[in-house]
Amino acid sequence: MASRMVLSLEWVDGEDGFLRLLDQTLLPREVRYLECRDAAVVWEAIHQLRVRGAPAIGIAAAYGLYLGVRKLAGCNDAAKFVREVDGVRDYLAGSRPTAVNLFWALDRMQKLAHRLAASTSVPAIASALLAEAQAIHDEDRRLCRAIGRHGAGLLQDGDGVLTHCNAGGLATSEYGTALAAIYAAVEAGKRVHVYADETRPLLQGARLTAWELQANGVPVTLLCDNMAAQVLREGRVQAVIVGADRIAANGDTANKIGTYGLAILAAYHGVPFYVAAPRTTFDLSLADGTKIPIEQRDPREVTHGFGRPTSPDGVDVYNPAFDVTPAKLIRGIIFEGGVISPVCTETIARALGGSETEVGFSDGAARRESRSSRDG
Amino acid sequence: MASRMVLSLEWVDGEDGFLRLLDQTLLPREVRYLECRDAAVVWEAIHQLRVRGAPAIGIAAAYGLYLGVRKLAGCNDAAKFVREVDGVRDYLAGSRPTAVNLFWALDRMQKLAHRLAASTSVPAIASALLAEAQAIHDEDRRLCRAIGRHGAGLLQDGDGVLTHCNAGGLATSEYGTALAAIYAAVEAGKRVHVYADETRPLLQGARLTAWELQANGVPVTLLCDNMAAQVLREGRVQAVIVGADRIAANGDTANKIGTYGLAILAAYHGVPFYVAAPRTTFDLSLADGTKIPIEQRDPREVTHGFGRPTSPDGVDVYNPAFDVTPAKLIRGIIFEGGVISPVCTETIARALGGSETEVGFSDGAARRESRSSRDG
Repeated sequence: MASRMVLSLEWVDGEDGFLRLLDQTLLPREVRYLECRDAAVVWEAIHQLRVRGAPAIGIAAAYGLYLGVRKLAGCNDAAKFVREVDGVRDYLAGSRPTAVNLFWALDRMQKLAHRLAASTSVPAIASALLAEAQAIHDEDRRLCRAIGRHGAGLLQDGDGVLTHCNAGGLATSEYGTALAAIYAAVEAGKRVHVYADETRPLLQGARLTAWELQANGVPVTLLCDNMAAQVLREGRVQAVIVGADRIAANGDTANKIGTYGLAILAAYHGVPFYVAAPRTTFDLSLADGTKIPIEQRDPREVTHGFGRPTSPDGVDVYNPAFDVTPAKLIRGIIFEGGVISPVCTETIARALGGSETEVGFSDGAARRESRSSRDG
Repeated sequence: MASRMVLSLEWVDGEDGFLRLLDQTLLPREVRYLECRDAAVVWEAIHQLRVRGAPAIGIAAAYGLYLGVRKLAGCNDAAKFVREVDGVRDYLAGSRPTAVNLFWALDRMQKLAHRLAASTSVPAIASALLAEAQAIHDEDRRLCRAIGRHGAGLLQDGDGVLTHCNAGGLATSEYGTALAAIYAAVEAGKRVHVYADETRPLLQGARLTAWELQANGVPVTLLCDNMAAQVLREGRVQAVIVGADRIAANGDTANKIGTYGLAILAAYHGVPFYVAAPRTTFDLSLADGTKIPIEQRDPREVTHGFGRPTSPDGVDVYNPAFDVTPAKLIRGIIFEGGVISPVCTETIARALGGSETEVGFSDGAARRESRSSRDG
């Protein structure tokens, strides 16, 4: 693995510190970084998907809020400063109104400013806001590292790992979720070969995952989604690991379209299928996945996916954004607290209720189970 | 369904009769027909894939041979005429050296010319060659109609049918193989809705199947290959029907990459999976599918599939041309003699050995079996 990982975003310290963002819209053809020195550049980057992935968007927005108010850091009117915080918060919240992490990060920053306003000088509030953005950034880094550590325990030297879409470092601070397990395994000296589904219609696997792994020096083979069954059949893959958009209380998992089919193919070939996602991905208000409505996306993603039309005019198109993989097809859910396995309402409730050390689902147990059933 | 089907190729009778070919390289954006009046135009059309699909290539080549020699139809030197037949045969055989049907059709034409040469006038040989090309064409039409008739018996009014790649009229004289069942069902007054996998990497489903069905007035919905599992789960599909490149003695079936995965997904959802192919697709010299080597194709089909690169430079690519679906996942094989079900070495040997009326595998039995297991 490369000695230094490619970073989706990085705070560059200094007198006039700034946020450096990798412009993901140019990948995989061009590697260009944006230097964000005010909120408007961050707004545009989020809006144009130059930064993407829930955690990365939240981190970028937190820095963006700081960048938006620091010009007033020298003033001595705390009320005025906090009004500016509120204004920049609302401004950035409009950059991508469906991104939950965006609101979460902005609200956390805003609350801090309000709390400090009564008793703290403006320069100190400004400093605290930068520190808070860095804390959000650090927390994500630690969280991904923890997911990686637990996930790496499921992989053995020489394993092939199949993944779908991009649940990698590009979507987070550094390590990603599904790819975190791979990076951590490689850092621990295991040889891992990744098979990346290209992930139609938007090709996140081809454009992002393949690029990211290649840039980080991890061996990767790109395939079309419909080739996964053959790769599994040839015995090239010892584990499938994917990310998640939302996990219901019983473990049913919504993720990029194609995940459900892949889980069936893995089960058919006796290969363990894992989901890697932080604790915040669980939505315990949903008893199971049947309550998750499946949104249809623009047909043009399918018919015009590559800049020119590839199907007849006016053709009817089925283009669901995601699908729901039932818990019974998931060998384990890797989160920052450990590996939940078997996956069901009781084990999830227990895992999320406990602290990290209390979680009784060791990586070893999940691995042994997966290995024995793989042999079967 | 449209009152007159779109034809991939058609002989236009007259003083200076010619072969009219649909230029499939321009689909789905443009419908343009080529008028082939000599062998060179046919050679170019086969070579450039303007006509594609084993049966259609064979038919085009047969007409092409006639077109290549008819300028000598007025001469009275049979030996000279037959030498010309040999020359044109060799010329056309070079248009696509891996197409088995091309050789089969050309050899049949050549043998006829040689057989007639001793006793028949040149004009009569020339006429016989045109009649032979028309016979090859007619035989394919009848064969596809028979496959359609047997396949339609497996479908009920209101069924959804999922298909992969293009095993339709564009690849044959008119009806196709997998799509023949659908056309025949629609002609019999059944409402059928087709779900067409786009079929990466070359998008035959999007470019050809969706276009063909739309042009023939059959309702069709296009989807990415990785969406098939979700379509199956939603209960939209009552049967999956695909074509075949090659079928081993035990029923293991090589077909376009993605077919094997689709068969697993169909089995998981209890939806019957059928293969439709003529008798000539069986290769009884292969005991099973393990003997079929899986060719890897140009990585650029995956990385540059749409005119511009969509993945990082130098990325490793897995791009098998086809996969092999094991017989146990195939509910029935639809051929011109009936429906072979269950699929195994014994039933296949019996079906291929018998005449049409002797084959004891009625459509009704296969359908009943499929329906009951679908409910289960």
